[in-house]
Amino acid sequence: MAEQVLLLDFWPDPSGVRIRVALREKGVEYEYREEDFQNKSPLLLKMNPVHEQTPVLIHKGKPVSESLIIVQYIDEVWPHKSPLLPTDPYEQANARFWADYIDKKVHYFGRSVWETTGEAQESAKKELIHCFRTLKGELGDKTYFGGDRFGLVDVWLIPFYGWFYTLETFAANFSIAEECPKLVTWAQRCMERESVSKSLPDQHKLYDYILEHETGQNQPHL
Amino acid sequence: MAEQVLLLDFWPDPSGVRIRVALREKGVEYEYREEDFQNKSPLLLKMNPVHEQTPVLIHKGKPVSESLIIVQYIDEVWPHKSPLLPTDPYEQANARFWADYIDKKVHYFGRSVWETTGEAQESAKKELIHCFRTLKGELGDKTYFGGDRFGLVDVWLIPFYGWFYTLETFAANFSIAEECPKLVTWAQRCMERESVSKSLPDQHKLYDYILEHETGQNQPHL
Repeated sequence: MAEQVLLLDFWPDPSGVRIRVALREKGVEYEYREEDFQNKSPLLLKMNPVHEQTPVLIHKGKPVSESLIIVQYIDEVWPHKSPLLPTDPYEQANARFWADYIDKKVHYFGRSVWETTGEAQESAKKELIHCFRTLKGELGDKTYFGGDRFGLVDVWLIPFYGWFYTLETFAANFSIAEECPKLVTWAQRCMERESVSKSLPDQHKLYDYILEHETGQNQPHL
Repeated sequence: MAEQVLLLDFWPDPSGVRIRVALREKGVEYEYREEDFQNKSPLLLKMNPVHEQTPVLIHKGKPVSESLIIVQYIDEVWPHKSPLLPTDPYEQANARFWADYIDKKVHYFGRSVWETTGEAQESAKKELIHCFRTLKGELGDKTYFGGDRFGLVDVWLIPFYGWFYTLETFAANFSIAEECPKLVTWAQRCMERESVSKSLPDQHKLYDYILEHETGQNQPHL
């Protein structure tokens, strides 16, 4: 707690995973506090009164919320180790574009796979594969989306690797490794980083959580 | 065209208004090209193949899309005049937070006012007034959201001033000036800037457009 960094988080949340990865990439020590969404803490309500959602990063007593804003903040405040955003404005815009794409598409169609059945699920699967192929095109032959360096887009996409087991279990005849082998190779490469392997929830625990809670009304949706 | 800046845009789109305001604040000369959504130009499809949407800023032949990404790009590439984002990381995060809030809330509830009737409309009106009051709280006694300087949050909110006439016409007993006089004073102050007054569409023309098109299926929704 040398830097007074506190993260209010919720373990299965991909937005929270990103913050954990970013802080670990930077080597920032932080205190982790799990929120109970049935009984939100007074600190969460005080620190994010507008949305009352995790993740919230509290640094020197001041809150930052919304995952893309938090990760950009982390990159600004601790710039010397593992820069996550490129310095060139065009490359920066490109990284933000793909982070935004992942938020809008992968997140949405991923959840649709376990929230639907039948034709709707087939359609969500197709859309998700289309997203993964588009992302594979952006990755190309690079080591990471950030090139030789693990960067913002890698941080943005990697939490969904934790969803692969759930997606393949909910949907029949769905092998992401068969559809997009390069993306799985990229994910495995990311998992060799301690920042990533320590931050992603266990895939079976996540599956159990989703199975139990994701159709309920009292839990926040991932 | 000294800088080879081309904007593919759609006149009533608040996202496009922001780009026009930002470019004018910076004194960047640009070519404006109106897109026809019934017949998208090959250039738009080539420059934004993922979303096929405006606005797209093409600078030296390279495209940038998504309004928040474009405005941050503009601020990075032309930093010397009218900086739009604060330099302090915490203030920067705060500005991004409110821009995100405006995107998620004001845009959504604003459109709901003209897309619904009866109780649903009453509810949207209440939510919208709550948003405006929250934003008024953030503005406080400052000249602009950016303090003494017109900044990102001002650029983000001001296009919706062009919606006020439409909102008040669609909904009965709805006077934004009565509910949030300070916000209207702020908007009028912004309108004194040429960057703003030249970029916002005429409010009556916008009303006519919304009345004619916003319930149709063939036009992009604002």
